[in-house]
Amino acid sequence: MSSPSSPHAGLVEKVFRYMDLHQDEFVQRLKEWVAIESDSVQPVPRLRQELFRMMALAAEELRRLGASVDLEDLGSQQLPDGQTLPIPPVILAELGNEPGKPTVCFYGHLDVQPATQADGWLTDPYTLTEVDGKLYGRGATDNKGPVLAWINAMSAFRVLEEDLPVNIKVIIEGMEEAGSVALEELVKREKDRFFSSVDYIVISDNLWLSQRRPALIYGTRGNSYFTVEVTCRDQDFHSGTFGGILHEPMADLVALLGSLTDSAGHILIPGIYDHVAPLTEEEKELYGAIDLDLEEYRNSSRVKKFLFNTKEEILMHLWRYPSLSIHGIEGAFDEPGTKTVIPGRVIGKFSIRLVPHMNTSVVEKQVQQHLQYIFSQRNSSNQMDVSMVLGLHPWIADIKDHQYLAAKRAIKTVFGTEPDMIRDGSTIPIAKIFQDIIQKSVLMLPLGAVDDGEHSQNEKINRWNYIEGSKLFAAFFLEVAQLHE
Amino acid sequence: MSSPSSPHAGLVEKVFRYMDLHQDEFVQRLKEWVAIESDSVQPVPRLRQELFRMMALAAEELRRLGASVDLEDLGSQQLPDGQTLPIPPVILAELGNEPGKPTVCFYGHLDVQPATQADGWLTDPYTLTEVDGKLYGRGATDNKGPVLAWINAMSAFRVLEEDLPVNIKVIIEGMEEAGSVALEELVKREKDRFFSSVDYIVISDNLWLSQRRPALIYGTRGNSYFTVEVTCRDQDFHSGTFGGILHEPMADLVALLGSLTDSAGHILIPGIYDHVAPLTEEEKELYGAIDLDLEEYRNSSRVKKFLFNTKEEILMHLWRYPSLSIHGIEGAFDEPGTKTVIPGRVIGKFSIRLVPHMNTSVVEKQVQQHLQYIFSQRNSSNQMDVSMVLGLHPWIADIKDHQYLAAKRAIKTVFGTEPDMIRDGSTIPIAKIFQDIIQKSVLMLPLGAVDDGEHSQNEKINRWNYIEGSKLFAAFFLEVAQLHE
Repeated sequence: MSSPSSPHAGLVEKVFRYMDLHQDEFVQRLKEWVAIESDSVQPVPRLRQELFRMMALAAEELRRLGASVDLEDLGSQQLPDGQTLPIPPVILAELGNEPGKPTVCFYGHLDVQPATQADGWLTDPYTLTEVDGKLYGRGATDNKGPVLAWINAMSAFRVLEEDLPVNIKVIIEGMEEAGSVALEELVKREKDRFFSSVDYIVISDNLWLSQRRPALIYGTRGNSYFTVEVTCRDQDFHSGTFGGILHEPMADLVALLGSLTDSAGHILIPGIYDHVAPLTEEEKELYGAIDLDLEEYRNSSRVKKFLFNTKEEILMHLWRYPSLSIHGIEGAFDEPGTKTVIPGRVIGKFSIRLVPHMNTSVVEKQVQQHLQYIFSQRNSSNQMDVSMVLGLHPWIADIKDHQYLAAKRAIKTVFGTEPDMIRDGSTIPIAKIFQDIIQKSVLMLPLGAVDDGEHSQNEKINRWNYIEGSKLFAAFFLEVAQLHE
Repeated sequence: MSSPSSPHAGLVEKVFRYMDLHQDEFVQRLKEWVAIESDSVQPVPRLRQELFRMMALAAEELRRLGASVDLEDLGSQQLPDGQTLPIPPVILAELGNEPGKPTVCFYGHLDVQPATQADGWLTDPYTLTEVDGKLYGRGATDNKGPVLAWINAMSAFRVLEEDLPVNIKVIIEGMEEAGSVALEELVKREKDRFFSSVDYIVISDNLWLSQRRPALIYGTRGNSYFTVEVTCRDQDFHSGTFGGILHEPMADLVALLGSLTDSAGHILIPGIYDHVAPLTEEEKELYGAIDLDLEEYRNSSRVKKFLFNTKEEILMHLWRYPSLSIHGIEGAFDEPGTKTVIPGRVIGKFSIRLVPHMNTSVVEKQVQQHLQYIFSQRNSSNQMDVSMVLGLHPWIADIKDHQYLAAKRAIKTVFGTEPDMIRDGSTIPIAKIFQDIIQKSVLMLPLGAVDDGEHSQNEKINRWNYIEGSKLFAAFFLEVAQLHE
């Protein structure tokens, strides 16, 4: 439904009707994209090939809309284990470049987190399956659905032979889940070429805070991902033959990992909170205004109890305070059964979500020093190696920016409500990269509901979010155009 | 070379010469057995089929020697995850039952620990490969080689048409590495049938303490294998979306695992040492007598530094004191790469090697209470479940037993030296089971060298140990017969 304020009411209605009528085609296209196992996390040649196939398919889709498309070769990456893998190309696409119109650049990614049915999926993760209006599949909401929603919005104007109100640029990568390898260099290279004419940057790679109420996002946390490797020898031991006389690597590793946080989730690394931005009154008020039913949120998360009991504490610890999570251990016995092994070499993995104004290189030093200290206290004869394998900065935007106002109006038009002004606890490295390099306004305009389950089993996007989201992007084109009328 | 004391010198020479001449056939047979992936640890239908194939092949081999062979069906086992798998049959074989002769019963197992080339094997684990007189392959020393050495000894007398000096019984199982599932019940059932006429029981499922000097083993440690499961929900979380507000299962688990031992390997579970047998002067002297070059042992183990610096301390902590090893974690991220996941449900696995006079049910209570206490201190909202999935008792023999004296003489005959009188830190559950149920003398007569690497990558048995070991069993038959002349 269109808000009275909108001068484009007729056109809006026409575009929305088109999208309602053609939604099954949109879903079908999403099904084709989800079918590709574009997993960038597991460094396996077969999966890299799938990523290349995914990027080629998206490029073809954009060309069909009349966009000029470049596939930027990013060469290859060397992995810690020595093997070299090709990096999927980045799509740089452009549709329209009329001087009078503002240029909006959309960023998205088409790589996904690993998923196998054995992990506990109720359906094949790579076969988009609709149940009660929910479209289940890996990448459905993170981030293939939103990328297609943008493309759906572009296509609507084209099919309806309506003038596209803005010049559109699109940048799509295939390594976001692996830390956007080599993307920053590309953006730097293209700063004065592809990005020179860009006025606004839009990212739609997160979720709302509720199941029905839309949101605008003005900040994301960074991430420093660490590996801590403890080695006795490059071969396992039999726990009967050697148990009792060894400094066992697993004993060292659990002590190291156990020293990182207390049972209340507080990070114990000295100095880690020193650079966390102080809480202002203005910021504090934002949390109170947010429409979040804690009980509903807890239920939809299927968590018995959180570390905190108030909406404000919960939101602040997800958005504006750092967190540390232990992800797992490589090299130990990880299968069902009862193997009596003393692993000879184990690699612990954990990461810290960073907030303004924490700095990855400072955090790296603090973690190194802390773990070296803990390890030295053990007088272990094993070897320990700590390395930060990913270092991604946090990002925060000015919510008074014009682009944010335009997005609010578009949301009013499509959903008839004001958005929640929120942050995202996860990391979208590109936001900070765009902000620093291109120095244009970056907007995060999410489409997915809070319970979409990105990165976990049974990821989904609701058909309603996917279709209304496509409308939202179309309405946003018109609102941004108005900023320049 | 035969010792002057032996009255069977001529026969001994004849048998040994036969074995030297036919050693390539013996190696070829071992190659055929190693080629079967009889892994009982990973509960996979395909591997169970391999186990059945292995048992059938061994039964056929024994029948070829004229033995009467039964394949005892042990039904199936229910796994924690609910699936049901068939248990491979146990071989009960018998060759000769002349009243005048003693009856020696040999126990062995033909199942193996998991092995893949990816684990770091230099050769295919299931293709027996000889390099410098070393026969590399999974199960070569644990326990397929020794089982075949016994069969080689039986066959020598048959081929040479010499009277077998003892009645021989053989019991071979296929679930030893998985805790000898259902074997104890079988031994109880057969107590007054198959085992009624048995005078001596021989097990050869361990290693010497040196590379060249043979050993007799008079004790083994038990094993209590525990799983500790921590559950927040049956689905993983995204560390960006939920990091900071959860009691993370991995944080609870590393704290629990970290509370089990100190950095000196001392077990911190209250009361765990209460039932450890006090050290007598007589026992103490045994350790001093043992010929162990610590430096050589350390080098062959490829360990930079042990927890202890003297031969006596090392041996006592491997044999007569308990040890605790953490084997790994199931359910966390265990692959290469940087997955940003908060595992929703994780299962830690550790085991305690028990010594006389520790009791599995007492240990189970102590571990339960300790972990419950540690967990309660964390005020975690997660659920914790501790269970002892294996409980195997320690075993100790009387080294003044006649069978031990016979074995010493056989060793003198074959190797021209006295054996080390040692224990084994690992667990051979069947020893204690035989001792308790059959109540006959149990002897452990190992064939493999200290560096055979059972349970680890590049497991091997030396051709020399395999062939001389076959001779040792033949000589042992004659020495045992003499006990009854």
